[in-house]
Amino acid sequence: MKFDLLTTDSQSKARAGVVTTDHGSIETPIFMPVGTVASVKGVHQRELKNDINPDIILGNTYHLYLRPQTPILEKAGGLHKFMNWDRNILTDSGGYQVYSLSANRKIKEEGVKFKSHIDGSYHVFTPENVMEIQRTIGADIIMAFDECTPYPCDYSYAKNSMHMTHRWLERCITHLEKTPLKYDYNQTLFPIVQGSTYKDLRKQSAEYIANTQQFGNAIGGLSVGEPAEEMYAMTEVVTEILPEDKPRYLMGVGTPINILENISLGVDMFDCVMPTRNARNGMLFTANGTINIKNKKWEDDFSPIDEMGITWVDTDYSKAYLRHLFTVNELLGKQIATIHNLGFYLWLVREARKHILAGDFRTWKDMMVKQMDKRL
Amino acid sequence: MKFDLLTTDSQSKARAGVVTTDHGSIETPIFMPVGTVASVKGVHQRELKNDINPDIILGNTYHLYLRPQTPILEKAGGLHKFMNWDRNILTDSGGYQVYSLSANRKIKEEGVKFKSHIDGSYHVFTPENVMEIQRTIGADIIMAFDECTPYPCDYSYAKNSMHMTHRWLERCITHLEKTPLKYDYNQTLFPIVQGSTYKDLRKQSAEYIANTQQFGNAIGGLSVGEPAEEMYAMTEVVTEILPEDKPRYLMGVGTPINILENISLGVDMFDCVMPTRNARNGMLFTANGTINIKNKKWEDDFSPIDEMGITWVDTDYSKAYLRHLFTVNELLGKQIATIHNLGFYLWLVREARKHILAGDFRTWKDMMVKQMDKRL
Ligand SMILES: [Zn+2]
Ligand SMILES: [Zn+2]
Repeated sequence: MKFDLLTTDSQSKARAGVVTTDHGSIETPIFMPVGTVASVKGVHQRELKNDINPDIILGNTYHLYLRPQTPILEKAGGLHKFMNWDRNILTDSGGYQVYSLSANRKIKEEGVKFKSHIDGSYHVFTPENVMEIQRTIGADIIMAFDECTPYPCDYSYAKNSMHMTHRWLERCITHLEKTPLKYDYNQTLFPIVQGSTYKDLRKQSAEYIANTQQFGNAIGGLSVGEPAEEMYAMTEVVTEILPEDKPRYLMGVGTPINILENISLGVDMFDCVMPTRNARNGMLFTANGTINIKNKKWEDDFSPIDEMGITWVDTDYSKAYLRHLFTVNELLGKQIATIHNLGFYLWLVREARKHILAGDFRTWKDMMVKQMDKRL
Repeated sequence: MKFDLLTTDSQSKARAGVVTTDHGSIETPIFMPVGTVASVKGVHQRELKNDINPDIILGNTYHLYLRPQTPILEKAGGLHKFMNWDRNILTDSGGYQVYSLSANRKIKEEGVKFKSHIDGSYHVFTPENVMEIQRTIGADIIMAFDECTPYPCDYSYAKNSMHMTHRWLERCITHLEKTPLKYDYNQTLFPIVQGSTYKDLRKQSAEYIANTQQFGNAIGGLSVGEPAEEMYAMTEVVTEILPEDKPRYLMGVGTPINILENISLGVDMFDCVMPTRNARNGMLFTANGTINIKNKKWEDDFSPIDEMGITWVDTDYSKAYLRHLFTVNELLGKQIATIHNLGFYLWLVREARKHILAGDFRTWKDMMVKQMDKRL
């Protein structure tokens, strides 16, 4: 993997760059649509590629490990071939889902024992086997196994957990070196900064992670319920320390406003289920604010879903029609809203990139943050 | 509406023709995908048009009347504009759903009082108001209000019901003449032959319906549980009588084999929820038989869904991937299966048409019926 930093904004820490892997280039800042279990819910790969057009998507190791399971992915020749997606993929380490979805999980130094939320069967994730699982899934960017602490988290728990995450990272790096690639392209490991909402811990963790000198770095444990201001404060501490010549990925963030603010603080990569999950609940993001399309006020509004027309759904369908589809619970409603939201998120990061390159990112960002902070 | 009968097969009663309306031409035999409540479930209008490419789709008056309701459709300028579909639409009369979906319905000479399956509210359908509702929905082809008898049905019920359907037809015709068009294109009424599985009643009804001299004729009350042989026997009696120079629509039929057999008996138009509903349950139709994609046998079968590649989904996705999507209950599974099945149904009727025009329909039909009668 290679990262070319093209420019850094003079009025903020926003950066424009290009990550290059064996599956092509990723123009940053980037938003990665979440393809949980080998599908971006409700979107055909053809639409994802032609209409939404992200350079990279994300898969969840926890979900893929449980279904279809790694032997099937291995027989398929990896996740790219299994789901017919020839651009970049990033997989998380499975940790986050273990902590949030599994009712029964025991975290020990060795690893985490957990009960599947599907069939109640018991499994163990360790830094070692998670590296092996991610070798088999075959994403271009793979994540270190970490503990993602909840919010709020008391200081001593956060501190101990952070150190365990650091020890787990060493085990990931060591084991990954011993685990050969399974397919004919490279994989890059990103370590994860933890430390909850404590500046001193975040600083320590960022220094530790930076010292491991991987090709990219991630910030975890944010967007877990803390106020946005705390999130931004932590991002700021961390991006001060993480090396400038490597991409920075803020995991699980966030609203369009969160994304612009974190770009401003020097983050290059994002993922979040919000555009897809909220779409399935009838919530649309636009440049002028959010729309609850289920609201009766749209019942006879035959104007296009979004005059901006970022994706074809915005102008092919009306607000009244989309509202109707949600009222009658038709699949097509979820499909339309998902394409709209993902189209908007990708537009937003591309537009941010253009403004960073043009040198007027800060002004544009401040205007957009204000403009998007509305309910239509 | 205009119907040009191009040819009739010499070895069967199969016909190839063209129906022309203000929304364009419909090459027959045709299968009409069902767009129940202003959406063909799981399929974007763009995909429906470009990939599946039917000349006409069907909407359900009962569902559209309940939601979004006729005032919204009227404000939208009709169903075509509401759902952004500029080709032909046919609406049924609502009768079938009243009989099958509404727990509480009372059928009287005046009409049918029924309880909405959505909110329990009471409504009345009469031949008169159903004509008005269909004027407002604005389909190109609209159906007379009839009683669709269940199977089995005793002779005296079937006979009385048939005569009521005939009286209702007169009321439909009279009222429709008094009800002006709402939009800038024409609508054509199709009367419906009833008579359950009794040949003498079917003959009587077909003669009655033919005598009303509408531009097209429909056969109702079949595919309601009777054996296929009884269905074919009834179709045969009726197509002997219905005029050759008008299109014949067999309502609610059926499997690919049912469709070919009924084409062979002189039917021109079909609709059925089977390709879409079965798709959502993981059942695929192919030229070589049916596939239950949920079956474990497909778990590691990475071959294309259908080597024929009628629609792009057939070759873009593998059986193992589609099986996985059904296992994890992803929306995309239903979307893929629906496009596959509709693509196959439309291919089947187009292929039938080619063979009718080429003069070898009978041989091809016999071969296909044998070939499709398998579980893969
Ligand atoms: Zn440490
Ligand atoms: Zn009669």
